[in-house]
Amino acid sequence: MNKRIHLTIIGVGLIGGSFARAVRAAGMVEHITGCGRNRENLQRAVELGVIDDYYLDIKEAVKNADVIFIATPVGSFKDILYQIKDALKDGAIITDGGSTKGSVIEAAESVFDELPANFVPGHPIAGTENSGVEASFATLYQDHRVILTPLAYTSPEALEVVAKLWKSTGAQVVSMEPHHHDQVLAATSHLPHLLAFSLVNTLTTLDERREIFEYAAGGFKDFTRIASSDPSMWQDICLANKDALLEHLEHFSQDLNLLRTALEHSDGDYLKQVFVRAKQSRDDLADKNK
Amino acid sequence: MNKRIHLTIIGVGLIGGSFARAVRAAGMVEHITGCGRNRENLQRAVELGVIDDYYLDIKEAVKNADVIFIATPVGSFKDILYQIKDALKDGAIITDGGSTKGSVIEAAESVFDELPANFVPGHPIAGTENSGVEASFATLYQDHRVILTPLAYTSPEALEVVAKLWKSTGAQVVSMEPHHHDQVLAATSHLPHLLAFSLVNTLTTLDERREIFEYAAGGFKDFTRIASSDPSMWQDICLANKDALLEHLEHFSQDLNLLRTALEHSDGDYLKQVFVRAKQSRDDLADKNK
Repeated sequence: MNKRIHLTIIGVGLIGGSFARAVRAAGMVEHITGCGRNRENLQRAVELGVIDDYYLDIKEAVKNADVIFIATPVGSFKDILYQIKDALKDGAIITDGGSTKGSVIEAAESVFDELPANFVPGHPIAGTENSGVEASFATLYQDHRVILTPLAYTSPEALEVVAKLWKSTGAQVVSMEPHHHDQVLAATSHLPHLLAFSLVNTLTTLDERREIFEYAAGGFKDFTRIASSDPSMWQDICLANKDALLEHLEHFSQDLNLLRTALEHSDGDYLKQVFVRAKQSRDDLADKNK
Repeated sequence: MNKRIHLTIIGVGLIGGSFARAVRAAGMVEHITGCGRNRENLQRAVELGVIDDYYLDIKEAVKNADVIFIATPVGSFKDILYQIKDALKDGAIITDGGSTKGSVIEAAESVFDELPANFVPGHPIAGTENSGVEASFATLYQDHRVILTPLAYTSPEALEVVAKLWKSTGAQVVSMEPHHHDQVLAATSHLPHLLAFSLVNTLTTLDERREIFEYAAGGFKDFTRIASSDPSMWQDICLANKDALLEHLEHFSQDLNLLRTALEHSDGDYLKQVFVRAKQSRDDLADKNK
């Protein structure tokens, strides 16, 4: 890696902005161009030193880029790839931060006649419930996993460039098969978000809603924090990973029904058995992160 | 209130231990006796200065008490009240920290021929996912709500003593009708715990369970933190507040089914509408707590 990399970030929000801040801090890039639809946000990103310049015209934004990082909601990928397709510099590497990988690869397959060898799908397992460049920070990826899902056609050189950029942010880079990535993330991220949004929505419809939110303690706040996440982004993720999400949702609903039946029959043993198993797993997770 | 209060804590764990630490720090009590089934925990509580002495015999523990605070899982209340019934000093005040109030009042009604005027049901809306006296701390209740659910027969003097003790811990004391308390808490606490336990349990049964927990990010950890709570305590709470919990679970399941159907039909507008409404409520909650 050298300092002559011109990086273009499409979507300068929490994910794109934090990536820009981190690789710049690590001295990995010479120039960072931003691109997006909101001029005010891009202007703010320049003021914050996150990017050096910006274009609202996506073709202009990518034409000099050595590496393009797409950090917009996954539903926009097809359109973005279609627009940049013929504007790319020779050898330009395309990577992304999308939360689903099957849909991103499908989008690329539908746009390119032959999938470019310089396309390296990726997904940083990091984030907060906040959005926009103001929420971005250079250490967001520190000690977090980044999953790259290279395919048979992916060039090892492009993979290495993207991996080095991510490593410079302090992240641990791992590889995974795209479909497997989508299964794992549906369970660990997409389903919890769906449940949190759904629960908070349900509570807003109850007669006691004012008091419910008034008497919410720390447990409720932790449990529902992810319901403050960006609705458009999560709409996209749910649709993009629909099959895996529905599969896990089905498992969850079946198990929840068993728990409901046990509760109806005051079957304390069953409840306790479930609670004990869950606590054990959750405690293990806490221990691992000590 | 004066310093001559002899307080007996039945169940010297997170809730009981933190109450003892806080009222002692506030100079509200002269002597604190502990009671429980685990001698080691009680011994540790003495060493930590949480209590002054302890008895494994519950009748011995309460016989000199001016105020008795029951901080055990709610399933044990009937048995405890039955045992202390004839050992109480004249005018002794009984209060508790149980998470459900209907069941606690039912337990008292089944034990006492006439409900004692000095019985003041209560519930501090505070806690952590940790258990035991080691997890207790004097500021647990600082700026948290404590809900007292006095009944028609409750003596105003007893209510005032209990309220003053709680206020000395830094808590805000409010009154609520017991049934209403149970409805609100089922929504804001009991249902979220049930869902968190259920989700983590479901994930432990999946083939990808190792990776699911390995790739769990901050959102998942927040969402599932309450699944580390004490299984026995939560078994008790779920059974004790079964009706209200089942009612809210029914609402939740119906709404989740609508969301599932929308996802099956790739109805992004419906998803977004739910997510936007949830985010708005959750953001309001965050703003209120700034």
